[in-house]
Amino acid sequence: MFENVELGHRLDKETYRQRSEAVRLQLLDLEYRLVQERAFATLILINGVDKAGKGETMNLLNSWLDPRHLDSHAIDRPSSEEEERPYMWRFWRRLPPRGRIGVFFDNWYADIIEDRATGRSKRSAFEAALERVRRFEEMLAAEGVLLLKLWFHISAKELKRRLEKLSKDERTSWRVRESDWRYLEHYDEYAQTAAAAIRHTSTGVVPWVLVDGADDRYRAVFVGETLAGAWQRKFEAVERGEGGAPPLVLVPDLEERPNAVSALTLQQPMGKRAYERRLEELQGRLDALVRDARFAKRSLVVVFEGMDAAGKGGAIRRVTAALDVRRYQVVPIAAPTDEELAQPYLWRFWRRMPGHGRVVIFDRSWYGRVLVERVEGLCAPADWMRAYAEINDFEEQLIENGTVVVKFWLAIDPEEQLRRFREREKDPLKRYKITPEDWRNREKWPQYELAVGDMIERTSTEIAPWTLVEANNKYYARVKVLHTLCERLEASL
Amino acid sequence: MFENVELGHRLDKETYRQRSEAVRLQLLDLEYRLVQERAFATLILINGVDKAGKGETMNLLNSWLDPRHLDSHAIDRPSSEEEERPYMWRFWRRLPPRGRIGVFFDNWYADIIEDRATGRSKRSAFEAALERVRRFEEMLAAEGVLLLKLWFHISAKELKRRLEKLSKDERTSWRVRESDWRYLEHYDEYAQTAAAAIRHTSTGVVPWVLVDGADDRYRAVFVGETLAGAWQRKFEAVERGEGGAPPLVLVPDLEERPNAVSALTLQQPMGKRAYERRLEELQGRLDALVRDARFAKRSLVVVFEGMDAAGKGGAIRRVTAALDVRRYQVVPIAAPTDEELAQPYLWRFWRRMPGHGRVVIFDRSWYGRVLVERVEGLCAPADWMRAYAEINDFEEQLIENGTVVVKFWLAIDPEEQLRRFREREKDPLKRYKITPEDWRNREKWPQYELAVGDMIERTSTEIAPWTLVEANNKYYARVKVLHTLCERLEASL
Repeated sequence: MFENVELGHRLDKETYRQRSEAVRLQLLDLEYRLVQERAFATLILINGVDKAGKGETMNLLNSWLDPRHLDSHAIDRPSSEEEERPYMWRFWRRLPPRGRIGVFFDNWYADIIEDRATGRSKRSAFEAALERVRRFEEMLAAEGVLLLKLWFHISAKELKRRLEKLSKDERTSWRVRESDWRYLEHYDEYAQTAAAAIRHTSTGVVPWVLVDGADDRYRAVFVGETLAGAWQRKFEAVERGEGGAPPLVLVPDLEERPNAVSALTLQQPMGKRAYERRLEELQGRLDALVRDARFAKRSLVVVFEGMDAAGKGGAIRRVTAALDVRRYQVVPIAAPTDEELAQPYLWRFWRRMPGHGRVVIFDRSWYGRVLVERVEGLCAPADWMRAYAEINDFEEQLIENGTVVVKFWLAIDPEEQLRRFREREKDPLKRYKITPEDWRNREKWPQYELAVGDMIERTSTEIAPWTLVEANNKYYARVKVLHTLCERLEASL
Repeated sequence: MFENVELGHRLDKETYRQRSEAVRLQLLDLEYRLVQERAFATLILINGVDKAGKGETMNLLNSWLDPRHLDSHAIDRPSSEEEERPYMWRFWRRLPPRGRIGVFFDNWYADIIEDRATGRSKRSAFEAALERVRRFEEMLAAEGVLLLKLWFHISAKELKRRLEKLSKDERTSWRVRESDWRYLEHYDEYAQTAAAAIRHTSTGVVPWVLVDGADDRYRAVFVGETLAGAWQRKFEAVERGEGGAPPLVLVPDLEERPNAVSALTLQQPMGKRAYERRLEELQGRLDALVRDARFAKRSLVVVFEGMDAAGKGGAIRRVTAALDVRRYQVVPIAAPTDEELAQPYLWRFWRRMPGHGRVVIFDRSWYGRVLVERVEGLCAPADWMRAYAEINDFEEQLIENGTVVVKFWLAIDPEEQLRRFREREKDPLKRYKITPEDWRNREKWPQYELAVGDMIERTSTEIAPWTLVEANNKYYARVKVLHTLCERLEASL
């Protein structure tokens, strides 16, 4: 989930100057329109890791926007008035009216996550609280409120660096409290809990936006452009008469924003000799795992996704070579059949779910909804926006059933793809594999890369993480796939 | 919740003949269109009290519809294939495709309710399971499936009568099993659990439809007309290009369908002398309760709703007369202020919520959303349809906070209203109370009655029930109000 926002995005001074100037003008225009037209209220939730820029963002909004239309609330300890009333009363009383902007710092999420990360609440209570939040937020959206949920993130390493730096300087050491060190110590528990909270409350209607908090300049521009984009789309929706809850596609443009996939070093070393040795060893290990008595009560679902010619088929063959043919099934996902088209989109995948002791390998999968269907406009934005949450629900059910779910993204770069396309065209045995559609898809590489980044961010969950595979070198990719499968299976048996 | 459907609605033979003939023709037409156009799938869930007509309805659908397009599923014990896969797999594999009708008997609700009613599952697990169901059903609706959730109900008394009748006749005694008697014994636990399940899963998008199961003829026509109406509206939505999840307003017309309010005997005896004695006694009791030390950590919210001139004001004055003026507040709800209009609609009520030891009395309330706003078309159907669930969430938060919530519907008949209007017009002191709007509202009596019936059904929950007050006799009404308040407060302290 935090793969993209742990990359430490940065902006240089000059880019920052240009971008921030442009977005500030845009924000002031939009804010003015908001205040004039009073078409909707704006509520910004600021949550995330401490020291990842939450406070700075509060200040930023106050300086970039006209602060007369903005109310910031850091709700720390409840007043006696608040304690006598239902928990949410403290937020209801501070809701921004139409034409105003409310910023809620830490808000309803902070307590829920804190209670769970420290073990004070049980999982069921945690999930119940999140469901309630979800209903509340969906109600706000249906009432026309523009709800922007920002999650600020930095890695444990970066947090440690910051705390140490602040502590060393006596002018700033007061900013580091005992609780900050405690947080760092339990960073993983907090991150896992946060990921679960984000997964449960990121819906098509009110998605979370994850913000890389590593660099002040990048963060400022990212937040500014995200808010401007959200306002823009909300005004458009209101103009179309769709005031209530349009799905917001909240991603500033890609250029300066590498994601977890584009940041990979795709060319990894591995020679043929080493490959063959490792392959044999790993296939043997996988074979043994699948024959293990403990696997007889489990099952395995493997997802392969990747651009055309990324090597999905080749990797799959190296996996199946290790398996008894009676135990596995490879399901290639192409255009749906008539029968499949007549059903909810997840139906075609549900029908393939394995029984005990069995393996199903998907060559492309349900992620088509948020990849090809999104990029090609085959479904409405509302549909693929809600698909992230639906997919997470789906995979959660599999995992609770004891199914091991392993998802691979095979990453190559456009040059490598071109090389492989040309190679295929030359080979009469492989020529059939390359179609005009492949060339067309290739032109949409940036859009696909954006979609892949969002997919990883929204569906690489603590229970079903994605494995990103550097696949320019096929040998390396296949070994990583097999190795990951073995590790995940071993950990789960 | 079950107030309306415990009235024992009946249809005479002749009405049945006419209505059933008409609706069967309509159903066949619509079914044919469904099969031809394949615009959406239809999924009918059949749940409820055993012996309330669930099986008969399954048979009915098979005989009234062309059964070639219908698949009925009673999922009893899971197969070994099903046991190896996630729980919902058994339903996914049976989902009807576009152009077909699936009927799921007992389906995913039966186990969830059974587990909770028998104490096998905890409240948190029960609620988590229902939330999951809710997300699943919303996904189906978003995917274009027409989901019709029917809950068949009969009272404990009626169930007992049926079981005894079946047992006596040796030709039918085989139909009564040990489990039926056990169910009857624990009828209240089951009914309470069912009410909670219905409350949690009745949303604007996929509402439950409650069916009075007392009479075969009535039930058949009700189900037939409900399905026909749902199909009709779904086709209209598809034509408008709103295939995904239109809010369905699923109420066959009122004429033969008295509801909990219209079925009341509004004229109840009580003379002035008895009234004055009881009034004094009850006011003293209420005064003592509100001064009770235990109330210092609680609070009280009272809602008064009723047609114009139903006596809300008079009843409220008899309540406040018993209270210390520093302890209570009366909030009359009229047109919202500018400030209130700029907020989500529940905001104006949240802001009035009492602190500890205090009482707030609403003269009209948040129920305006599903009464006047619905009837007058002041908000879209989608908005008032989702309001039932939002109101239930709201009241749940109050109750969990220790607030006692008491809701009164003051019921008079149109003749009594007319008498009171005329009386007011004659009285120079009361003339101001009557406006042209009151006369206009009066013309919409049937629409209001329908809205009130739906409101009671959908918001008289196990945690915040409505009290229906027969109010043609003001003395009786005021005494019932005060008596109810005292009883509810006593029970909660």
